[in-house]
Amino acid sequence: MAESSLALSPPWLVLEPLVIQWLQEDMGRGDRTTAALDLGDRRGRATLTVKQAGVVAGLPIAAKVFQLLDATAQMVVHFPDGTDCSAGAIAAEIEASLEAILLGERVALNVIMALSGIASLTRTYAQEIADLATQLVDTRKTTPGFRLLEKYATALGGARNHRFGLDDAVMIKDNHILAAGSLTRAVQRVRRSIPLTHTVEVETETLDQVKEALGAGVNIIMLDNMPIERINAAVELIRRHSTAIKIEASGNITLETLRTVALTGVDYISTSGTITRAPWLDWSLTVVPLEELEQSQ
Amino acid sequence: MAESSLALSPPWLVLEPLVIQWLQEDMGRGDRTTAALDLGDRRGRATLTVKQAGVVAGLPIAAKVFQLLDATAQMVVHFPDGTDCSAGAIAAEIEASLEAILLGERVALNVIMALSGIASLTRTYAQEIADLATQLVDTRKTTPGFRLLEKYATALGGARNHRFGLDDAVMIKDNHILAAGSLTRAVQRVRRSIPLTHTVEVETETLDQVKEALGAGVNIIMLDNMPIERINAAVELIRRHSTAIKIEASGNITLETLRTVALTGVDYISTSGTITRAPWLDWSLTVVPLEELEQSQ
Amino acid sequence: MAESSLALSPPWLVLEPLVIQWLQEDMGRGDRTTAALDLGDRRGRATLTVKQAGVVAGLPIAAKVFQLLDATAQMVVHFPDGTDCSAGAIAAEIEASLEAILLGERVALNVIMALSGIASLTRTYAQEIADLATQLVDTRKTTPGFRLLEKYATALGGARNHRFGLDDAVMIKDNHILAAGSLTRAVQRVRRSIPLTHTVEVETETLDQVKEALGAGVNIIMLDNMPIERINAAVELIRRHSTAIKIEASGNITLETLRTVALTGVDYISTSGTITRAPWLDWSLTVVPLEELEQSQ
Amino acid sequence: MAESSLALSPPWLVLEPLVIQWLQEDMGRGDRTTAALDLGDRRGRATLTVKQAGVVAGLPIAAKVFQLLDATAQMVVHFPDGTDCSAGAIAAEIEASLEAILLGERVALNVIMALSGIASLTRTYAQEIADLATQLVDTRKTTPGFRLLEKYATALGGARNHRFGLDDAVMIKDNHILAAGSLTRAVQRVRRSIPLTHTVEVETETLDQVKEALGAGVNIIMLDNMPIERINAAVELIRRHSTAIKIEASGNITLETLRTVALTGVDYISTSGTITRAPWLDWSLTVVPLEELEQSQ
Amino acid sequence: MAESSLALSPPWLVLEPLVIQWLQEDMGRGDRTTAALDLGDRRGRATLTVKQAGVVAGLPIAAKVFQLLDATAQMVVHFPDGTDCSAGAIAAEIEASLEAILLGERVALNVIMALSGIASLTRTYAQEIADLATQLVDTRKTTPGFRLLEKYATALGGARNHRFGLDDAVMIKDNHILAAGSLTRAVQRVRRSIPLTHTVEVETETLDQVKEALGAGVNIIMLDNMPIERINAAVELIRRHSTAIKIEASGNITLETLRTVALTGVDYISTSGTITRAPWLDWSLTVVPLEELEQSQ
Amino acid sequence: MAESSLALSPPWLVLEPLVIQWLQEDMGRGDRTTAALDLGDRRGRATLTVKQAGVVAGLPIAAKVFQLLDATAQMVVHFPDGTDCSAGAIAAEIEASLEAILLGERVALNVIMALSGIASLTRTYAQEIADLATQLVDTRKTTPGFRLLEKYATALGGARNHRFGLDDAVMIKDNHILAAGSLTRAVQRVRRSIPLTHTVEVETETLDQVKEALGAGVNIIMLDNMPIERINAAVELIRRHSTAIKIEASGNITLETLRTVALTGVDYISTSGTITRAPWLDWSLTVVPLEELEQSQ
Repeated sequence: MAESSLALSPPWLVLEPLVIQWLQEDMGRGDRTTAALDLGDRRGRATLTVKQAGVVAGLPIAAKVFQLLDATAQMVVHFPDGTDCSAGAIAAEIEASLEAILLGERVALNVIMALSGIASLTRTYAQEIADLATQLVDTRKTTPGFRLLEKYATALGGARNHRFGLDDAVMIKDNHILAAGSLTRAVQRVRRSIPLTHTVEVETETLDQVKEALGAGVNIIMLDNMPIERINAAVELIRRHSTAIKIEASGNITLETLRTVALTGVDYISTSGTITRAPWLDWSLTVVPLEELEQSQ
Repeated sequence: MAESSLALSPPWLVLEPLVIQWLQEDMGRGDRTTAALDLGDRRGRATLTVKQAGVVAGLPIAAKVFQLLDATAQMVVHFPDGTDCSAGAIAAEIEASLEAILLGERVALNVIMALSGIASLTRTYAQEIADLATQLVDTRKTTPGFRLLEKYATALGGARNHRFGLDDAVMIKDNHILAAGSLTRAVQRVRRSIPLTHTVEVETETLDQVKEALGAGVNIIMLDNMPIERINAAVELIRRHSTAIKIEASGNITLETLRTVALTGVDYISTSGTITRAPWLDWSLTVVPLEELEQSQ
Repeated sequence: MAESSLALSPPWLVLEPLVIQWLQEDMGRGDRTTAALDLGDRRGRATLTVKQAGVVAGLPIAAKVFQLLDATAQMVVHFPDGTDCSAGAIAAEIEASLEAILLGERVALNVIMALSGIASLTRTYAQEIADLATQLVDTRKTTPGFRLLEKYATALGGARNHRFGLDDAVMIKDNHILAAGSLTRAVQRVRRSIPLTHTVEVETETLDQVKEALGAGVNIIMLDNMPIERINAAVELIRRHSTAIKIEASGNITLETLRTVALTGVDYISTSGTITRAPWLDWSLTVVPLEELEQSQ
Repeated sequence: MAESSLALSPPWLVLEPLVIQWLQEDMGRGDRTTAALDLGDRRGRATLTVKQAGVVAGLPIAAKVFQLLDATAQMVVHFPDGTDCSAGAIAAEIEASLEAILLGERVALNVIMALSGIASLTRTYAQEIADLATQLVDTRKTTPGFRLLEKYATALGGARNHRFGLDDAVMIKDNHILAAGSLTRAVQRVRRSIPLTHTVEVETETLDQVKEALGAGVNIIMLDNMPIERINAAVELIRRHSTAIKIEASGNITLETLRTVALTGVDYISTSGTITRAPWLDWSLTVVPLEELEQSQ
Repeated sequence: MAESSLALSPPWLVLEPLVIQWLQEDMGRGDRTTAALDLGDRRGRATLTVKQAGVVAGLPIAAKVFQLLDATAQMVVHFPDGTDCSAGAIAAEIEASLEAILLGERVALNVIMALSGIASLTRTYAQEIADLATQLVDTRKTTPGFRLLEKYATALGGARNHRFGLDDAVMIKDNHILAAGSLTRAVQRVRRSIPLTHTVEVETETLDQVKEALGAGVNIIMLDNMPIERINAAVELIRRHSTAIKIEASGNITLETLRTVALTGVDYISTSGTITRAPWLDWSLTVVPLEELEQSQ
Repeated sequence: MAESSLALSPPWLVLEPLVIQWLQEDMGRGDRTTAALDLGDRRGRATLTVKQAGVVAGLPIAAKVFQLLDATAQMVVHFPDGTDCSAGAIAAEIEASLEAILLGERVALNVIMALSGIASLTRTYAQEIADLATQLVDTRKTTPGFRLLEKYATALGGARNHRFGLDDAVMIKDNHILAAGSLTRAVQRVRRSIPLTHTVEVETETLDQVKEALGAGVNIIMLDNMPIERINAAVELIRRHSTAIKIEASGNITLETLRTVALTGVDYISTSGTITRAPWLDWSLTVVPLEELEQSQ
């Protein structure tokens, strides 16, 4: 199958069980409507159309949806994931059994519409600072069960991924500092036990905390909810101390404030908004039975 | 545990495996940060605060998150699911091991913020037509894997649930009609094979299709994407034919057009927008180690 | 593969995990006998013979059994599911690796023999009232874990399926009425919360209850364990009130009493007996190594 | 909880996942009826009554059903599994939340009624030869997914279990002999590879095969579908050769022929009929809300 | 695919879920390194080389590893499982997508190196007594989750498998005797309830226990941790009583003492050491992109 | 339960499914021996004794084993995980139902013995360089399915963990370099796509590769299989270039060569040997029925 690139995402061995679960969620004990039509081996061609301008995302998952229902399903992709399409563009066509198309339609569209919405909003954000060195990054505020794909969509839209979970990097937040007694103590404890490959980020709200973080020795300092002047001061403080430490600004950053924050010279700006405020992008799937296509030729 | 009502949702035997999956998605091989703090048996009290006015949703799931991590976790609910809260309200408090609170915080908040967003937007829609007989209903456009809870949230917000999947009701759409040859034929085939308890809905776009549906014998007629005058005509046509047939209007209905459509006298108006266009509602979780609480008393 | 129709059943995405589980139940850590024979790539042809006259059921599941063990397995079906066969008929032939045939034989036969028994007994019942408008229906008294296929078998035998579970229709029984306080109150509560597509059935034992059900507004009234005269009276009462309400008779109905009850004009007669009293139908599987077949030609 | 003995069955670690699966099969996305009643914390007492004389089976599984739905559920058993009850006996009482009782009722009854049917029919068979040394045994003809419990029921009824699957003993049948070339060769190959703890049984139809089996060295010889005289001859042949070899008679044995076969002196008589021809035993569950019980006292 | 024999092992239906689990354990949310290389459809050829002389084991599992990641993967086996190879031998070659090779490399090697280590050490033990009738056997001391393959490896090395778990044979050990009150009582209870196909082994430490075991009637007597003279006495005692009872010596048997124990004439000597003391055998996997291979020709 | 610290390991939500799987692997369809003893509610006290001097590891997992079989099981730990014990030390005692003790004994011991072996060998290695700044680290050469615990054991023994899988850090090895065309190109591609939190390590064999790595910009440089002089040269080269880059020596490092390599000043020395060459440490479990204990007092 001509499949669009999904280079950023996990192997199918990881994703396929999720896709199966989503199909089972929708079909329960079976599709009463389609089963009743008794379609047998009849085949159809389905067209996936972008109804609203935006960034394509999710086609390989949609292809997998139909292949799980019909191993012979074929998708031809015209505009692969990541393409910025105008309304009306036919992004892909699927040839499969009519039954598989009718069964899988809703799940395939749900994946594509949700992910395209996220990729599109992310791109709007990313373009705002595209000429600057600062990178837009995502967060762990993701829909339960859907994180791998939501982070795939932000990457398609132009963001850099932040950590994927509690295990692949350390993030020391206010609640951890409270529990440990102090930022320094939290960093020390963490340094002692984590895999040597892991980096340590710490959340700071004041310049004093920034200084403490610099003393404790961390890889990334997050400036959380700071006013611009404090961000400026913090950046200067950190850069003077070391060029190796990365700086991330976070907290209530909107499309309006994004560029201003980026101009402070921070390395990363993280926002959950590209996921939690992204409306779905409208798409449609239309299907024609193959025998009709053949008759009309 | 004082647990808010979740009367609309499935039993824990169905929901718990989902909650476990969501926790595992976030923690991967473990929470490197929290594990390093070596918190042992220390306990804490966490406060769940609504930071944006809106409808509370998801507290029983959040309670389950913490109980799965610490069987002795207790949640006291001040504003149960469905309550309309103003910003700043403390909706619930949790007492649990510090470790469980830090481990479960993100997943609990992700569930609550996503669901509260949906419940809040749904209520805005529902109130628009609260004085009319027409009911707002949801659709199958839901985030893959999250449907049970998203539909729980629309119900909290004041919508009526439409079918939950392909198996608990029949919906004959354009693609089915195309595959079957005609609307009438599709209805006949379906009637022959479905469980006797199941209802049949058919999607119509023209008055001719409405007439065909009336002849074929269906339980619900959906008027899809029709202009207001056509809806009016269709409602008249259907009501004259039978009072038992329910009428559902659907297609690009917004908060602005909702009331106008309701005034045509349809029984239901379905929209995916209360889910697919709902931004998350902002919440925060703050935690205090119990020993501090005790010292300060 | 020439596969008999399984139009009534759920997609393989739902059924395949069950078939895998049944195979694993039988093979545990592996088939010690077959593994020891070290059959390598040798192939065989197996013949599935109906040893007792009856209705064929389960061939597509049997085909799946062998395909799960050998992806190249092929089944040719001579008498597809639903066919009434006489003893000795060869219903299907399978070509597959000898190992797959020996491994899958027992599970395949267990499925076929159990389902054919149910389909056959159901047909005997159904034929008793085949000339009447009344339909035979099944119940939720099914072997745990095997319901989807047992209901598939009753449908093959000529019954109409009743609801598949607690979630796809509402059935208010004596215990619910007791818990709710009254039949009317139970119906009111249910009406408020169920999906708009769902129907409500209520179990009645007396004419007073029938009247209460008519007043409460339900879709189906079950007459449970009523004597014939009471059924007659109830049917008259209900029909006078509405032609839209369906009537189901239930409770200790046997092959002997079935027609008498049907003649009262009820829409449905439900019985668990076609499943809970159905002896398995006898089948055999014989296998010939392919190299022998070739030598003998 | 006062729980009847389930000494013959596997640990809950093995059984519990099955019980959960059976509950999920029945409830799908949830129990619409019970959820609507909004029963909260109300509790009830349920009575399990044997409506048809027979052998009790399945009470510990029923107890587990209710405990999985309500961890505080308690069952008091009056007549534990294996007891021969007359019609009308109250075998057990359950106190649990009303919701758990209504949710679990059908699955609990399905398990009990199916298993009691098997245990009862098995006892009828077993009593026929209770005064003889010959033991009744079961087979691998069991309902897919339900084998562990069906074999538990035959044991309760008085049968000895045969092997549980393809891995815990070797059974060389006609198809294996055909594939291996000869009975002797099949035995040799098997002896070489199986765990030292495993026994070898071989199926024979003629006296020549019995002789070959004696020469090949097996632990159990099955006499399959032999007329009585041939069984007599085979028993004599085998006993003369060794007292250590066990003899099993099999094939179309009915309640009528059972004793005659046993009188030949075979060690075991196997029949699938106690499972495949067992009608369910009738039971009922009635429930009273606890507050009513208290008021009436 | 040219696949080496895996006749001793369970069907893929049992093994494949384990292999998938092992791949998921290693890849977590995906292979960041390989995914970043964006290898698309590029293919490669990998060479599996034995770097230390020893017994090959695990190639069919390695083949399955790559096929699960790329359904078109092909393995050509030069030295199948069980072959004794000298250092430097190329045991197998795999052609697959470069991505699948890089993704699966570690898991494939881990399986092969661990199993080859066990098979090699087992062979060293087995050869020590190869000219005697006594057979070397394994135990249940196996790495959790890896037993099926570890026992496959001991069989490849020349050992006979002992029971695979708690369910396929009975082993009465000191703790069971303690719990039952006496060896005789334990045997009696067991005999009453186990499947007729199952054998009973009992652990003895003294000659008195051996005598009690002979009286109780068991199939196998284990002589646990006995000095050589006591083993000699026990063997004589048992052989005089019956030729059908098998004798197993066990307890701290090393390569040095193995032959001495075997010369006592016991049927089996069990040792966990071939698994618990086996260092991994060194192997390497090198890969060449196919396009380079083609250019160089 | 007094539970020893398992601070380094993942939450039970991650570990418990593994422990359940290991128990199911051992018990299959149930423990025939223990079930036959019909132990009912009888309780016992089990003693876990270290029979060989070494480092304790795995007690919390053993405690979980018994709790999964008997929710009331209690373990009292005398020497928690990480303690260096001499032979004969009683590390822990368990009070539980006799049935749970007999059922769980083998799995509990298998976990403890395997992990204690690894922790003990690791400590021997770690102590060799305990006075130096160089840290011993583990690798991804772990038994399939057992990695989380094996890495827990190396940490107990005094090693630092390396990455846990393919997803939580980047390691560019020879095969990746080959596939990418060059080391520099591989680093560039990886830098573009990985999460911002992730570090990049590259494997080098020559000083030229070390220089290329320094130019490409990586976090960790592995010196693979280099002779001591080359390691010295590489360390000097890297330290001159940056103090932030970490250096890891790897490849055939033994207890004998370990200190020599450490004296070159590398930050880490990785070896798979502490896992792949670790023999199990001997432990025993003895049990006394509680009623006996009480009688003897």
